Amino acid sequence: MKNIREKALELHKQYKGKLSVNVKVPVENANDLSLVYSPGVAEPCKEIYEDPDKIYDYTIKGNLVAVISDGSAVLGLGNIGAGASMPVMEGKAALFKGFADIDAIPLCINTHDPEQIIQTVKLLEPTFGGINLEDISAPNCFIIEERLKKEMNIPVFHDDQHGTAIVTAAGLINALKIVDKRLDNTKVVINGAGAAGIATTKLLLNMGVHDIILCDSKGAIYEGRQYGMNAMKESISKYTNKNKVEGLLQEVIKDTDVFIGLSVAEAVTPQMVQSMNRDPIIFAMANPIPEIMPAVALAAGAAVVGTGRSDMANQVNNVLAFPGIFKGALEVFASEINEEMKLAAVFAIANLITRKELKHDYVIPRAFDERVADAVARAVAEAAIKTGVARKKMVKQEKII
Amino acid sequence: MKNIREKALELHKQYKGKLSVNVKVPVENANDLSLVYSPGVAEPCKEIYEDPDKIYDYTIKGNLVAVISDGSAVLGLGNIGAGASMPVMEGKAALFKGFADIDAIPLCINTHDPEQIIQTVKLLEPTFGGINLEDISAPNCFIIEERLKKEMNIPVFHDDQHGTAIVTAAGLINALKIVDKRLDNTKVVINGAGAAGIATTKLLLNMGVHDIILCDSKGAIYEGRQYGMNAMKESISKYTNKNKVEGLLQEVIKDTDVFIGLSVAEAVTPQMVQSMNRDPIIFAMANPIPEIMPAVALAAGAAVVGTGRSDMANQVNNVLAFPGIFKGALEVFASEINEEMKLAAVFAIANLITRKELKHDYVIPRAFDERVADAVARAVAEAAIKTGVARKKMVKQEKII
Repeated sequence: MKNIREKALELHKQYKGKLSVNVKVPVENANDLSLVYSPGVAEPCKEIYEDPDKIYDYTIKGNLVAVISDGSAVLGLGNIGAGASMPVMEGKAALFKGFADIDAIPLCINTHDPEQIIQTVKLLEPTFGGINLEDISAPNCFIIEERLKKEMNIPVFHDDQHGTAIVTAAGLINALKIVDKRLDNTKVVINGAGAAGIATTKLLLNMGVHDIILCDSKGAIYEGRQYGMNAMKESISKYTNKNKVEGLLQEVIKDTDVFIGLSVAEAVTPQMVQSMNRDPIIFAMANPIPEIMPAVALAAGAAVVGTGRSDMANQVNNVLAFPGIFKGALEVFASEINEEMKLAAVFAIANLITRKELKHDYVIPRAFDERVADAVARAVAEAAIKTGVARKKMVKQEKII
Repeated sequence: MKNIREKALELHKQYKGKLSVNVKVPVENANDLSLVYSPGVAEPCKEIYEDPDKIYDYTIKGNLVAVISDGSAVLGLGNIGAGASMPVMEGKAALFKGFADIDAIPLCINTHDPEQIIQTVKLLEPTFGGINLEDISAPNCFIIEERLKKEMNIPVFHDDQHGTAIVTAAGLINALKIVDKRLDNTKVVINGAGAAGIATTKLLLNMGVHDIILCDSKGAIYEGRQYGMNAMKESISKYTNKNKVEGLLQEVIKDTDVFIGLSVAEAVTPQMVQSMNRDPIIFAMANPIPEIMPAVALAAGAAVVGTGRSDMANQVNNVLAFPGIFKGALEVFASEINEEMKLAAVFAIANLITRKELKHDYVIPRAFDERVADAVARAVAEAAIKTGVARKKMVKQEKII
């Protein structure tokens, strides 16, 4: 790790961060200036004043995403505050550009008050085409996302929740193909009831998984549990663990088909894997040390194992989801990113790997697979059109028809 | 004008705005990703968490300026709102980049409530190295700037006020050299008591001009005037028009040395120029039609005439000031842009034209004079150091010593 530490610090110091703002029009002489600035710039202003939608024609809004954080839940670092989270948010913006050619900028907000964050982001709506919420702690992340989705007219997406959920779901679909099981009669146990755990649970429910038990550090969550609950857990408990199974993970994991870990290192033992149904599927995404190491899980009988790590097979990497999702949403000027668009992303990612190519160590496309962002974007844009949240049809789509 | 209109619309539409966000570090493979993003990115985060000032080493903050507007007083367009002001703010950001290599982004805020604007900008302090307020109507612009200057620890600068004031003052210094008059016994009349008029008045007072009469549409402003006053006019009237001269511009302009117009087209007649002292100096900056056309003023006896127009001599163009001012302030991580820094900018701009080069139609450097931004930056940085608001000495400066 020392090597990475030194290299990372050097890189950041040498370039003073990772982003720059560039001018894509010529500004070389007085004539250029008269178009880019006064007096010519008044013309697009007047057009937008007459027809607000023209802001997408004449400004960067349509391709500009704000990466918003209060630095309250950064990577493995926790609540380091807005300023110290800047390198992560710049990095995220760099991924937007690198993977989907989206212009993104970090906006680190110096408060943990959800109401202040909501007001700040809302007031900046004229400038941005989309809002990516990042590394905001629960339950604020839920409150903020829900409110902004309701109160803004541009896509709002909390990547820590939905990005992880979408890529995990894509991997799960492919893993189930390998072991020849179906989503609708698969038993899933999800360990970790934070942002990503809750979001993954919701997404799988929407995909038709009926039997999910969500666990936190106190064990299985069930409706009416009298300890360690919160609003999100209460709400999700209406749809999960219908038999109100009680007990710790090591008990409730028995006779399930799929383990999804968004929790802590080494939460799963080989014995627990052995207690699962035939051909268990394990997504162990605790970082940097998974709930169970893939080699250990495989030796214990797991059929497919995924983790969050780039140095292991089947990496659940959000970069497979958010660039294409925003690209698709921005392409059709979607007013939101709805469930159908997320599901479209899931299947677009999963379907990039053909039945023939599928292997136990290749159920998720690799992070640098260049097909991913465009495939996801296309599927998401189509879903936006179908569900009526697109303000414009895709140009390509129109051409094809 | 139709030609410029069409060209400007075409340009903006072709490029979809004028800015892009680019990545200045390599993001080509998993190894790059491990430095730019997880896990390597945690290292600069930890460094900044330990020592908040390191945010300037490891992120873009130190070279990133937010161009803030609520779209309430845009160019000649007035209150067109935040969204419609985006092209201007993007253009301003483009000028920051083109003239001083500063990364700048527009943030158009969807409210005219000064308190909401103040809160929004304050909460974004971790992200930005400086704040450029733009096209915000009076008196909100004064309230917002004053509060942000007090409550933020990074430079805040309302360009419409100070940019115009600084370039006008530079032109005035050079014009006075030509007519062989001194600042401290020059009589100045300023027409227009909006943001730029008030700021120009203040700056000239700070430069040692003792005799200024500020006029609005109702005539000379004096302490205790019973009509058409506001807080800013009340405040400035304590330092101007000490003899409490009353009357309209056409009366009070008599026997003055300098006319500075930040008002309306054709406010000045040849007769009024003729009524001034010998070798009158005229800065007629109403846009697009000046208070008096230069040819008319010269024919009436003016010694030097400047306007706001790029197609006329002695253009008072803010682009001579704000890029270098921010560059200098950012270079030494100044906590503010104080009066001394503004005065340093005035003299840096004026002194680029040597006594020999000075002519009645060349008292202000041209907008594309490449020496300007660096000369201003250097002077501003030195002034920041001298006045103790710099958090770091200039590297170059240290080398020279």
